[in-house]
Amino acid sequence: MTINRRLFLGTTASITAATSFGVHTSMAADAKSTVNFALVGLGSLSTKQLAPALQQTKHAKLVGIVTGTPSKEKVWADKYGIKQENIYNYDNFDKLSENESIDVVYIVLPNGMHKEFTVRGAKAGKHVLCEKPMANTSDECREMIAACKENDRKLAIGYRCQFEPHNQHCIELARSEKFGSLKAIEAGFGFKIGDPNQWRLDGKLAGGGAMMDVGVYALQACRYISGEEPVSISAQETKTDPVKFAEVDESITWTMKMPSGVICYCSTSYAFNGINRYNAYADKGWFGLEPAYSYKGITGKTSKGPIELESIDQFAAEMDAFAKCILEDRDSTVPGEEGLRDMICVEAIYESIRTGRHIELPRA
Amino acid sequence: MTINRRLFLGTTASITAATSFGVHTSMAADAKSTVNFALVGLGSLSTKQLAPALQQTKHAKLVGIVTGTPSKEKVWADKYGIKQENIYNYDNFDKLSENESIDVVYIVLPNGMHKEFTVRGAKAGKHVLCEKPMANTSDECREMIAACKENDRKLAIGYRCQFEPHNQHCIELARSEKFGSLKAIEAGFGFKIGDPNQWRLDGKLAGGGAMMDVGVYALQACRYISGEEPVSISAQETKTDPVKFAEVDESITWTMKMPSGVICYCSTSYAFNGINRYNAYADKGWFGLEPAYSYKGITGKTSKGPIELESIDQFAAEMDAFAKCILEDRDSTVPGEEGLRDMICVEAIYESIRTGRHIELPRA
Repeated sequence: MTINRRLFLGTTASITAATSFGVHTSMAADAKSTVNFALVGLGSLSTKQLAPALQQTKHAKLVGIVTGTPSKEKVWADKYGIKQENIYNYDNFDKLSENESIDVVYIVLPNGMHKEFTVRGAKAGKHVLCEKPMANTSDECREMIAACKENDRKLAIGYRCQFEPHNQHCIELARSEKFGSLKAIEAGFGFKIGDPNQWRLDGKLAGGGAMMDVGVYALQACRYISGEEPVSISAQETKTDPVKFAEVDESITWTMKMPSGVICYCSTSYAFNGINRYNAYADKGWFGLEPAYSYKGITGKTSKGPIELESIDQFAAEMDAFAKCILEDRDSTVPGEEGLRDMICVEAIYESIRTGRHIELPRA
Repeated sequence: MTINRRLFLGTTASITAATSFGVHTSMAADAKSTVNFALVGLGSLSTKQLAPALQQTKHAKLVGIVTGTPSKEKVWADKYGIKQENIYNYDNFDKLSENESIDVVYIVLPNGMHKEFTVRGAKAGKHVLCEKPMANTSDECREMIAACKENDRKLAIGYRCQFEPHNQHCIELARSEKFGSLKAIEAGFGFKIGDPNQWRLDGKLAGGGAMMDVGVYALQACRYISGEEPVSISAQETKTDPVKFAEVDESITWTMKMPSGVICYCSTSYAFNGINRYNAYADKGWFGLEPAYSYKGITGKTSKGPIELESIDQFAAEMDAFAKCILEDRDSTVPGEEGLRDMICVEAIYESIRTGRHIELPRA
């Protein structure tokens, strides 16, 4: 990757080299310290979290938007000073290839659209930050990884918790075996979903229900706290409102066994509030977070006392981290492969529910 | 059961009737307000919990002991004023049939001995209170139930939590749907076991490991909070110390689905401390206990605030309740059938681990 690294350092020579090698040059145009983002999909997350976070980022800058709702164009342009030439819709999205002032597309669309827009973004020469869950299926994840690779673009998944200090501290507690060897993890995330007409309840757009939307946080936590990939997964599903949840899962519980013997038991639901946590149990003590996955107010405890750390804007941290990867030509710590690994687990969970069997997964 | 009811009221006429019907008469000898207990097995639980609790009971009185350790006889006789004629060992245990001053045998032996001494106790004409887990297998449970039925003796299992106010309050919160309809329960109980030579790690004496010893508390909680019997169970086991846990399970996680759709996810372990709780999640809120299963200090919380109730001696309450069942000729609320139902679930958990399949259970 030497040539790319040089490219990103942005010398004239490397630009020339890049062009002659057919490599996208938007990033190489100047030796910059910020990376230009376009938000793709201006729903609640973009509006309430990402755009405000992009006012705090050091290396990521909001310069473009992609929206299917024309009325949002002027509102956003006025509010964030978005230039007209950096405003796209889903039809002319591919024209981004001609726009060198946008480096990254952040895909904030319904899950079922992640694959298409990641692939189109990569083909347009843009690095891609894609919200979780990465896609509807592991095959889609593989396609997204391949598209980014083919187009020499970086791909990261919006796993903000991995940039959150309390979560990072828990990872460190696990890795350092501060409380001895890890034995078990209990993790769950769910909430009572409102509006029955939202895309999250549409099977095609959401790819799944609570499991895909918030269950992945608990799944991720088990994986990043243990640092391992499950070798056995079993799961059960329940549906108490088959009308509302006609197309997606309502509540799922699952257990996962890691190669070291760490055992995880988890839950997710769209039917009730109250679970937003993980706890890790080790030979000599325990540690965990509750709430663990909220945008704000993450709180930690261990068997020796509270975890006292500052709260940060997780989205800002996540976007700055990806921007730095691009500036320094490093792979993201939450690359497409990380999203794929979660999706392989999610598929095993669904398969276990469908078949009534424990699903064995190959050791990574 | 009219005749038995009259027997327990203890008139001369009924004694005659009882004798002529071949019914045991020890309870019928006098119209009493207390029931005489013998503790069978003088280990830690009897020594530290049951004997002290029997000093607080209103209707249960400690009058006898059965021990395999001769040196304990005098110690206990002196401490609790046990008469020599009420002291037995495991060989002469059946001679209890000739002792009308003992009404109840409380079986506090290793699990693997529960069946034998329950059956022998019933045959000796004694009502039986048997510690949890009821036995090593569901077939043993059935044999115990049958023996007590044949000998017209009452049988109860030592499910002290069902007599504990915080637990009872949670049952009431569930039944009254104070927080709406129940959706899910998370429950777990485990501890890091010490002495590697104790009977709890002996497969034959313990019948199983953490699952049998403390996992049953979490299992019980899911059953008494939901008020339902599982229709599907899946489980996984992990063993990080195969030497210490050569004969019994170390850590197990499991999920259970109830007929109403309530889903439960649970854990038990002998490998670590920190899990002693349950939480029930409903449509409009949640409630739960932590610690939930300790002898003392049960603490409860709901989504609306703390559960504030007095602490009681759970063993005293459990023994008084059984004594009252006998005095009033009512069946126990925690009869042998309740122990059997748990054991059927435990066997499904082990079967799921063995087969890698979800185990479907017939609707009760």
